[in-house]
Amino acid sequence: MKPSIPKGTRDFSPTEVANRTYIMNAIKASFETFGFQPIETPSFENSETLMGKYGEEGDRLIFKILNSGDYLAKADDKSLSEKDSLKVTSQISEKALRYDLTVPFARYVVQHQNEITFPFKRYQVQPVWRADRPQKGRFREFFQCDADVVGSTSLWQEVEFIQLYDTVFSKLGLSKTIIKINNRKILSGIAEVIGAQDKLIDFTVALDKLDKIGKDAVVKEMLSKGITEEAIEKVQPLFNFTGSNLDKLASLESMLQTSEEGKNGVEELHFVIHAVDSLGLESANLEVDVTLARGLNYYTGAIFEVSAPKGVNMGSIGGGGRYDDLTGIFGLKDVSGVGISFGLDRIYLVLEELGLFKTVDNPKPKVVFLNFDAATDLLKMKALKFLRENNIKSEFYPDLGESNKQQKRQWKYVTTREIKFVVSSVENDVFTLKNMISGDQIDCSLSELVEKLK
Amino acid sequence: MKPSIPKGTRDFSPTEVANRTYIMNAIKASFETFGFQPIETPSFENSETLMGKYGEEGDRLIFKILNSGDYLAKADDKSLSEKDSLKVTSQISEKALRYDLTVPFARYVVQHQNEITFPFKRYQVQPVWRADRPQKGRFREFFQCDADVVGSTSLWQEVEFIQLYDTVFSKLGLSKTIIKINNRKILSGIAEVIGAQDKLIDFTVALDKLDKIGKDAVVKEMLSKGITEEAIEKVQPLFNFTGSNLDKLASLESMLQTSEEGKNGVEELHFVIHAVDSLGLESANLEVDVTLARGLNYYTGAIFEVSAPKGVNMGSIGGGGRYDDLTGIFGLKDVSGVGISFGLDRIYLVLEELGLFKTVDNPKPKVVFLNFDAATDLLKMKALKFLRENNIKSEFYPDLGESNKQQKRQWKYVTTREIKFVVSSVENDVFTLKNMISGDQIDCSLSELVEKLK
Repeated sequence: MKPSIPKGTRDFSPTEVANRTYIMNAIKASFETFGFQPIETPSFENSETLMGKYGEEGDRLIFKILNSGDYLAKADDKSLSEKDSLKVTSQISEKALRYDLTVPFARYVVQHQNEITFPFKRYQVQPVWRADRPQKGRFREFFQCDADVVGSTSLWQEVEFIQLYDTVFSKLGLSKTIIKINNRKILSGIAEVIGAQDKLIDFTVALDKLDKIGKDAVVKEMLSKGITEEAIEKVQPLFNFTGSNLDKLASLESMLQTSEEGKNGVEELHFVIHAVDSLGLESANLEVDVTLARGLNYYTGAIFEVSAPKGVNMGSIGGGGRYDDLTGIFGLKDVSGVGISFGLDRIYLVLEELGLFKTVDNPKPKVVFLNFDAATDLLKMKALKFLRENNIKSEFYPDLGESNKQQKRQWKYVTTREIKFVVSSVENDVFTLKNMISGDQIDCSLSELVEKLK
Repeated sequence: MKPSIPKGTRDFSPTEVANRTYIMNAIKASFETFGFQPIETPSFENSETLMGKYGEEGDRLIFKILNSGDYLAKADDKSLSEKDSLKVTSQISEKALRYDLTVPFARYVVQHQNEITFPFKRYQVQPVWRADRPQKGRFREFFQCDADVVGSTSLWQEVEFIQLYDTVFSKLGLSKTIIKINNRKILSGIAEVIGAQDKLIDFTVALDKLDKIGKDAVVKEMLSKGITEEAIEKVQPLFNFTGSNLDKLASLESMLQTSEEGKNGVEELHFVIHAVDSLGLESANLEVDVTLARGLNYYTGAIFEVSAPKGVNMGSIGGGGRYDDLTGIFGLKDVSGVGISFGLDRIYLVLEELGLFKTVDNPKPKVVFLNFDAATDLLKMKALKFLRENNIKSEFYPDLGESNKQQKRQWKYVTTREIKFVVSSVENDVFTLKNMISGDQIDCSLSELVEKLK
């Protein structure tokens, strides 16, 4: 009966933790360079904070925490005997695990509004939990790394977020990521033009599948949703939407002439693209993508999504957008927000696939002192103390190896762990240091030892 | 209806996150210097991994996660109609939040035993959750920082853990912490000598209260538990246990002459204390404390507990010990482990009380570019790009301030946030930089700007 962990969760080995820390530190450092400050919120929130914020599907995927003690006392007999799980849930569970970082952030802003100076630029790097079906790149526990600004409608923030994506991915050595951008107002404008405003979501959901299922299937889906052929005819250019970003904008502009909102969206996108072009990106490509409609119920302006470089088969590795009234759900009106998220776990898989962890320092000891002679133990421990005061990662093999077999085990320990240096013996304050890679062995004093290992 | 968070949980502001990160980094860096490597385990485990490992009380305090979907379908009608919460729990919940880091670590070692080289030195810094009643220094979500070694019985590890405590607390500026040490074998020996082996737990629980309730009340409690007056007479020295550590050991040695296990415990303690004395501690004091009996069911050798310096009213800020058969519960026998834990949240409160966060860098921007003139926006953004490439934390005030009132708001933004530098205008590539503390203002080029801010 080997122990195991729940489906969709993972243990991380020292190497994995080091690689994850490397990614997180790159993201956090860039967040701070761009003026964002960290906050943290609890792993679980009151259920009412989370429920109803992510749609029906989201509600189902939220992990609920059972009340403590005699929790069934509060449940009503009828619902229990009918085994009405949905109804009983709210009677026996008052807390739930964080589903994303955005809703807790909105809650934070409203709760702490009097301590906050707006515009408020915060970042947050914490795990979230979803009872989703696990698959490649999708876990039940995973980390989000979010940066958001609330309290300003300036489009310069959209520009900065694109720079931020570029900065982080360039720093990680992941070049040629594709930063897709769209604007909710353009989508609304399109719906307006085709006279199918009530079918906006159906339309964009179908349009979003263009890459995956092709034009014919998309048209078929649109028709089946009650969008007319004439309407589809009016947006023909969207089915073959190529050229530069500025070409695309020109095409959208002419398509959306009759929609104020649509024109507004094109104008916003134009501002952002022009600014990004003027400032230049290090390694990412910015790409207008009108099929991009993620979180449509949520975003009100810009919509972002980042894809891994071509050839890497992975869903989006980041996304975000502007939401004009996020804190409204908690009673604070008219506070605009815009933000992006980095999907740590998928970025990990991409970097791994591309062999981009080569430079990451494994936090293992640089030197191990072997233990063959109890009489020198204290001497070795004194030397180790000095090494550690000099911040040299170092270790004492704890068990005395007197027999040949025991000594062999110690050598095997250092080779298996790929430890670079070994101190095998000390005599008259002279340390024998062996480089396990080159095989070189020298005798040296303690201060020389520190110099060698620094 | 202001939003709130669950009892016993906390939001952390940017300053608090910075302070917490400062503590965690000090701990992690020291762990690595001593040769420990990080692992991470999932926030929730299968319930069977956790349940029954912390006693009845622990089982109650574990947060259980409700199964997803129609979870009541699996519950039996009888238990439901009887509202038998205890019975129903295992039918509707299969996962639970981590209660500490030790049991998940034991699970990890057994599950990954073929990938691990023993002795295995791991550290782990992650949150844990307990449905305990919140009070000062006790939260329902809190961080543990653990280092453990498994696969060796060497007492040098006990010595190193004491050094590790001393190193971390000294680095944090927290001097004169008291590292208390005891040994389970001494406690067993005492019980043996007084002929009350079956009452060992009663005895140690009572003895543990000596500091709090005084000798008379402890004796009264012991008598009420059926420990005889004669027995209590035999351990009189324990009620007035003063002098140096070596004095105490001498007193214990004579008291435990008839107990092999007791003598063994004294010997172990002697080895550790002698070694620590020879190596020296930087700022902590090591103190033999025979009333120390934490986690008695768990530890089999050394027992550690750290108290904040005298005058600071706080429970233990760290603890640990040796457990000879931790992984046995998951089927891997005869693997000895020893480890310690740092209580991050309590250490935070202690450092705060003593004013020891003064040196912590707040991750806020060093400079803010004000936004008074749309015509220079792009110039400012170009300058910011250069600053950020030079790792200078910097920010652009996003909204244009044309009116006097709007401009005042920008100045207020930088003063409220205590931003040190402000760039108010750019003209002909000359930047006006103001030091908000001294009030000095200079004009400079972009490269001079970078030099000033670096």
